[in-house]
Amino acid sequence: MQASLAHLKQFDHVADAVSYLNQLKVTPAVKIAAQLDSSELIQLLENPELKHNDALLAHLTHARRADILDQLAEDRLADLLSLVETDTRQQALSLLSATSRTSVLRLMSYPEGTAGSIMTTEFIHVPTTWTVAQTLAHIREVESTRETVYAIYVVDAEEKLRFVLPLRQLVCADAQAPLTDLWTGQTPITVDAYEDREEVARIIRRHDFLALPVVDEDNQVIGIVTVDDVIDALMDEAAEDFGRFGGAEHIGKPYLEVGFTTMLRKRGGWLAILFLGEMLTASAMQYYELELEKAVVLAMFIPLIMSSGGNSGSQATSLLIRGLALSEVQIKDWWRVMLRELPTGVVLGTGLGAIGFIRIIVWQYLGFYDYGEHYLLIGFTIWASLIGIVCFGSTLGSMLPFALQRFGFDPASASAPLVATLVDVLGLVIYFSVAAWILTGTVL
Amino acid sequence: MQASLAHLKQFDHVADAVSYLNQLKVTPAVKIAAQLDSSELIQLLENPELKHNDALLAHLTHARRADILDQLAEDRLADLLSLVETDTRQQALSLLSATSRTSVLRLMSYPEGTAGSIMTTEFIHVPTTWTVAQTLAHIREVESTRETVYAIYVVDAEEKLRFVLPLRQLVCADAQAPLTDLWTGQTPITVDAYEDREEVARIIRRHDFLALPVVDEDNQVIGIVTVDDVIDALMDEAAEDFGRFGGAEHIGKPYLEVGFTTMLRKRGGWLAILFLGEMLTASAMQYYELELEKAVVLAMFIPLIMSSGGNSGSQATSLLIRGLALSEVQIKDWWRVMLRELPTGVVLGTGLGAIGFIRIIVWQYLGFYDYGEHYLLIGFTIWASLIGIVCFGSTLGSMLPFALQRFGFDPASASAPLVATLVDVLGLVIYFSVAAWILTGTVL
Repeated sequence: MQASLAHLKQFDHVADAVSYLNQLKVTPAVKIAAQLDSSELIQLLENPELKHNDALLAHLTHARRADILDQLAEDRLADLLSLVETDTRQQALSLLSATSRTSVLRLMSYPEGTAGSIMTTEFIHVPTTWTVAQTLAHIREVESTRETVYAIYVVDAEEKLRFVLPLRQLVCADAQAPLTDLWTGQTPITVDAYEDREEVARIIRRHDFLALPVVDEDNQVIGIVTVDDVIDALMDEAAEDFGRFGGAEHIGKPYLEVGFTTMLRKRGGWLAILFLGEMLTASAMQYYELELEKAVVLAMFIPLIMSSGGNSGSQATSLLIRGLALSEVQIKDWWRVMLRELPTGVVLGTGLGAIGFIRIIVWQYLGFYDYGEHYLLIGFTIWASLIGIVCFGSTLGSMLPFALQRFGFDPASASAPLVATLVDVLGLVIYFSVAAWILTGTVL
Repeated sequence: MQASLAHLKQFDHVADAVSYLNQLKVTPAVKIAAQLDSSELIQLLENPELKHNDALLAHLTHARRADILDQLAEDRLADLLSLVETDTRQQALSLLSATSRTSVLRLMSYPEGTAGSIMTTEFIHVPTTWTVAQTLAHIREVESTRETVYAIYVVDAEEKLRFVLPLRQLVCADAQAPLTDLWTGQTPITVDAYEDREEVARIIRRHDFLALPVVDEDNQVIGIVTVDDVIDALMDEAAEDFGRFGGAEHIGKPYLEVGFTTMLRKRGGWLAILFLGEMLTASAMQYYELELEKAVVLAMFIPLIMSSGGNSGSQATSLLIRGLALSEVQIKDWWRVMLRELPTGVVLGTGLGAIGFIRIIVWQYLGFYDYGEHYLLIGFTIWASLIGIVCFGSTLGSMLPFALQRFGFDPASASAPLVATLVDVLGLVIYFSVAAWILTGTVL
């Protein structure tokens, strides 16, 4: 595709223009975008998906950059500046007005993952003494500089939040009515700037809000979190949980943009920890060396039996991580869950064991393999071990998210590989104990 | 807590009242809720979190039920009726007006997971010939019966969608201006009723919409999907992907509400399939029986080596499922991914192998275990096998989501247990081949 300004200008929607620029190389992308007029350029920079925004800002003349930075939404500016180098950041901050600078610096100070880090300071607040007509007139005046005008925050003389009015109610009300007449008596729901963004998302979702006010200790509104930012936060959290469940630390960036060494570090750490845990299996097996030497046949079923424990465990874990995350299951329900997982494990283990038993009988009869004269006993060993291991796997897998939550960790830090590793070591002990119990005197 | 109407009435927010009722038993919950006046009852029933809604409807007198059903939003009614038994549904449908009935039946006809199944039919559409003042007057009139009034759909004489105006723009415009003056020339973005809800969510998220119009083949708006429904859809999809990745079919209901047999069926199917796949490991090991008999020591590292392949595979799979789901990675990028995973696997495998090698040397020196005179060769066998298996695991794990997408499946149907099973069988072959290559003539 030919990179051209004409091409960029033909896009109807900003998101499409951003996608177009993102797939160009940095130099042509910056060159074309810099030719846009300021309002178009601001629309591009307001879109969090735009790559090369730092290069684009650097390419602009000093005067133009000052103009653009001045017009960008403060929350977007804070995001942009937290990504660039210190020099560029200082220089950009010096171009802002004193109030903007304070405001942007405050936004940048909230830790990642908090309400403060995803809120915008551009909302509409009006005094309780105003009428509907006054409020609508104010909205007309400031609309273009506000992220949302669909929620209006009504504050008292001390700037404390009294109530929230949706624009739809305002539009339908009598123009001369005082705002206090419109208030239904509901206390507004608010959050603290340090509240976890996942909790913010939960509240917005629960009440179907378009925005949620963030207040300080004096109940003054310092910002709002809008629903579109919450969707992004929810998707990020889901990606994080998902990656972690697969056993990879959150990589934080698109796969192809992560550096090779970062990728190695993020993955290698967990793999090494799991490997160290899994080394216990080698120690466990050392312990059963004699049994193994007498009956090599036992070794053949090790992968099958151990993977069944891991699989049933990771099933249970994934179900309960989601249950806890969606508050469908509470921590106090742990015993109800255990009372379900135990019989579930017994039934599933019996089923899998039956398949394993039949496999041994069939192979013996068809002559695919000779398990020796005690093949029936070996079959029963596999069957009984599978009941024990699947039962143990699903119980342990289901309890792990509870244990993590109980001790203050995120239940989603339980990963499929972690469950498998935990189950593997004790799974081996179960297997060899069952074997010793059934086979001593015959095979062993 | 004492169940009482006074208690229920004290809640400021519907969501809290719903939570309160949900934790009561069905009989008291229904008894209390039925004493509310109709507008309060409708607010409760409009909340998708409310349990016992069928019992509540059944408890009402015939006349009251007709009144309530008539006032409920059509999309909510369609959801409610799709959950109740056929008799109740027929009876409820007969209480509706003919237009409502047609509309509800149509909503119920869209398959789960489509735009049609989550859309609402209660939106605002006005003719292109109107002015701002006429539109605002219309909004004031119908506001209370519309799910959202923040997007206004402007249609031509044939009811075809021409453009969409946000309420904020309308509020700020000159009252006498014709609507066509407000149009910026953007073609509206629309979806088909059978579009996947995940795609709907992607569009809403990309453009930061509050609602997305659903149109028929004539470009007439038949409904809108609002952002709050999209959040629910996104969370459901994430839960589904998550459960599937753990190896459990989507259970669709909160964990504690799923029947025992349903749970067994949803989990047992996958477990059995994985078990059948994993049985190939037993066959592979049969093949290496002689080697095993000569060197039981080889058996001791099987769990360790196999789990490392599975772990590195499930890491890679989870990273790429998310990458594909978020469109950060395209299907055409598969070779770039493979070119990253191969060296990543080599480095990670070398690292893990080194740990394993050191473990063997240390155990030998400290006398924890005697690997015999060829312990160094055994150490190298473990090291080399780990490089091969981790490399194979991460490459296979990263390619699986691409393969599934290429052949029309959801990439998220790749699960950690599936990856582990696929890696296990070939992992064993790699292990024993490396062992034969290094150890033949000494240990073997």
